[in-house]
Formats: sequence, C-alpha cells, structure tokens
Amino acid sequence: MRYELYYWPQIQGRGEFIRLALEEAGADYVDVARLPGRKGAAFDRILERAADGRTPFALPALRAGRLVIAQTANILQYLGPRLGLVPKAEAARLWAHQLQLTIGDLVGEAHDSHHPIASGLYYHQQKREASRRSVNFRNERLPKFLGYFEDVLRNNPAGDRHLVGRSLSYADLSLFQVMAGLDYAFPRAMGRMRRRHARLVALHERVARRPRIAAYLASERRIPFNEYDIFRCYPELDR
Amino acid sequence: MRYELYYWPQIQGRGEFIRLALEEAGADYVDVARLPGRKGAAFDRILERAADGRTPFALPALRAGRLVIAQTANILQYLGPRLGLVPKAEAARLWAHQLQLTIGDLVGEAHDSHHPIASGLYYHQQKREASRRSVNFRNERLPKFLGYFEDVLRNNPAGDRHLVGRSLSYADLSLFQVMAGLDYAFPRAMGRMRRRHARLVALHERVARRPRIAAYLASERRIPFNEYDIFRCYPELDR
Repeated sequence: MRYELYYWPQIQGRGEFIRLALEEAGADYVDVARLPGRKGAAFDRILERAADGRTPFALPALRAGRLVIAQTANILQYLGPRLGLVPKAEAARLWAHQLQLTIGDLVGEAHDSHHPIASGLYYHQQKREASRRSVNFRNERLPKFLGYFEDVLRNNPAGDRHLVGRSLSYADLSLFQVMAGLDYAFPRAMGRMRRRHARLVALHERVARRPRIAAYLASERRIPFNEYDIFRCYPELDR
Repeated sequence: MRYELYYWPQIQGRGEFIRLALEEAGADYVDVARLPGRKGAAFDRILERAADGRTPFALPALRAGRLVIAQTANILQYLGPRLGLVPKAEAARLWAHQLQLTIGDLVGEAHDSHHPIASGLYYHQQKREASRRSVNFRNERLPKFLGYFEDVLRNNPAGDRHLVGRSLSYADLSLFQVMAGLDYAFPRAMGRMRRRHARLVALHERVARRPRIAAYLASERRIPFNEYDIFRCYPELDR
C-alpha cells in the first residue's frame, strides 16, 4: 500500500505526527505537496468535494487506496495497527488513541499561546493577548500536561520507556515531537522543567536515536521549526 | 452492560455528547456524580491513579466493565457500535469519528470565545479578549464550521437527513447538541445563519423530536444551559 499524505509543505504542523509514524515504519508514502513541479500542485484539492461526499474539514489528510481520512488522531489510529505502531488488544488501542487526543489538546494549546484571538490574524496583531495567554500556558497548562504524561510513563505496568505497553507506539512518536517543539518554542520554561520530567526527557532522546527517526531528522524531509508553525520561538512568550 | 459516566454534575459540557448517545440508545447507565448522597461523592477519584495506570487527563470518562475510557470522541467511538449508533463498515466508522473530532474542534472554539486566555480564570477577567475573539468566532469560524457540516449533509450520497450513511449516528446527536448550544449562546448570530443552513436546522429539530431524546430533554436529567458551561449566553459576545 502506497500512502499519500496531504499537508502544507512549509511546516511540520500536525502533519508531522503522521510523517513520524510513516518514517519510523519505513512505510511507502509520498508527501504529495512536496513532490516536484506539477505533481505537487493543487494538492489541497483534497479539501474540495470528494466523490463519496467525505471531504475533510482541514489537513492533514491521508489517502489509503480509496479511503481519504482526516483528523490527525484518526489517521494515526488507522495507521497504527497497519504499521505495527500500536498493540493489538482493543483496550490498548483505546488507551493509545486517548493519549493521542490528549497530546492533540496540548498541541492546540501550544498553538493558541501565540494565537489566542484568531488563527487568521498575524501574531503581531494579537501580541498583547498572546503575552497573557502564554503566562497561563507556561505556569499552569504546560506543567499539568507534562506532569500527566510523566505519570503515564511512571505508571505503565510494562515499564516507563513507553506510553502504551512494552513497545513503541505512535503515541510515543507524537510525544517526542511535542517535546522537540516545546524545547524549540519555550527553551527557558522547558529548561526549568527537565529535572522533574526525567522520563519524558529520556523518551525524547531515545526516539531521536532510533535509526529511521535519526535518518529522517537529518534528511531534507524534516522541515526545520519556523515561525509559521505550531511551535514558535518568540522569546517574549518564554520568560 | 451497565455503563458508568463520570462527569461534572452542574453542566452539560462535553459529558452531554455521551449522555445523548446513551439516552437515545436506551442504554443502562448511571451518571455517577448525580447519584444521591454518598454514592456520588468523590466521583472524580477516577482522575486519580488507575490500577492499570490508564488514568484519564480529564473528564468525561466512561467505565465499561474493567475498562475506563476518556476523551469524548474516543468514548463515542467505543460506544457507537455497541449502541447501534454507527454503521458497521470501517470506512463509515472512520468518517463518523472524523466528523466527531471536527465537532469537538468547533466545541473547543465555542468555549474559547468566552475564555480565550485561560480556563482557570473567570470570564470577567478576560472580557476584553473574549470580545475580540468572539468577533472572529462569529464572523469567520462559526460560518466555516456550519457551512462545512451543511455541505456534509448535502453531499451524503445516502441522503441529507444524516451525516453518515442512511441512519442516525452519534455524530448526528452531537451536531444536534452543538446547534442547541449555539442557539443558546449566539441567538443573534445563529438567527442570521438559519436560512443558509436549512439541513442543519432540520437535523436539530428532527433529533429533538425523537421519542427518547424528547423524553430526556423534558426530564430532570437534562441540565439546563448555564453560564458555567461551554455554551454561555453573554449578549455582549453576540452582536
């Protein structure tokens, strides 16, 4: 099965959670918008009316044969068993998906820390509000989320190296991405928090060293973090 | 199977999407926090460490036998096939879940229209920012979401009475709840939009007339809308 990923070509964004799963599994996939020339043009037509009426609201979307699937966590849930990135048992799959949705909530709040008024406005148009929201994000929300995921690792009966069971899942890959993004966007706040979240820090480092992930991160396929993306380095929001 | 729902007893909130599915199906369930006296006390202990390490980040949570499941869309995905509220085919289930996650995004943005800075602060502490965010919500985001769901109904090959296939799904029930909440919170904005979204308006009315839903809405089990909830009636945010 050759998968087609549809996502914006200039950012990691929410598409990156899908890219990491496909890369770790060595899956056969194309990142449609990044194909050269005409092949990648107008990739966003997938947001127009689909033949079966099942048009996504937003990207990322994945084409798998005749299926078009959207919503990041939904795509990962679909790919998980096919790529060997989630255990087989239903209870474990529900748990992995639940964690992925909670990661998605954290990602949304990280985004809103610089865009609290409107995604459609520039940062400089909502800088004052972003300053206020980011204080709350750094002091309340970020510690709450990181403390939660640290506890999930600590309390995993199969060991604290993975979120779900005894082997790598797509949720671990997504948590790696969140840690990388938070380190980029909030180096000061994250620096203060590293000591209390040793398991998260170790998971981040361990995933980065996995051969396929390391090769991906060193390749041109990995788009650098930048200030059009979810995780943005604005020092004024990271006191 | 007797299901146990864990959610805050004073609000509809995200728990309402679960309540509506259980009510429509005539399922055997208890709303734990609303049990009289000691039985309902400390219902939120479910947020403390679970025996299997699978503790939710937040409510709602559902207990089904030995399973504890959280994240609204995840719970509905679990309940859907068990309550006969989603088609059997995998493609249809993925589509229903995708729509549910998109409904969840709209619900989150409706909440943030009055709480753009922090959930932990009062509305009056972020009134100025809420005023700005609600303009964007009413003028940009709300029409985009409603237009999308109207299109989903229009483009459903099985007919425009349901979001997924030819029969009622949990996504229809959730969209009913969103329409009810938006009508409560934004009566002026919604009044302007009714004509262009005839299918959504019809779905809202049709679900409200279903015998079990009508009985539920007329019962004491239906908590009234109020200003501690996701959908709040603040006239200054609804110009």
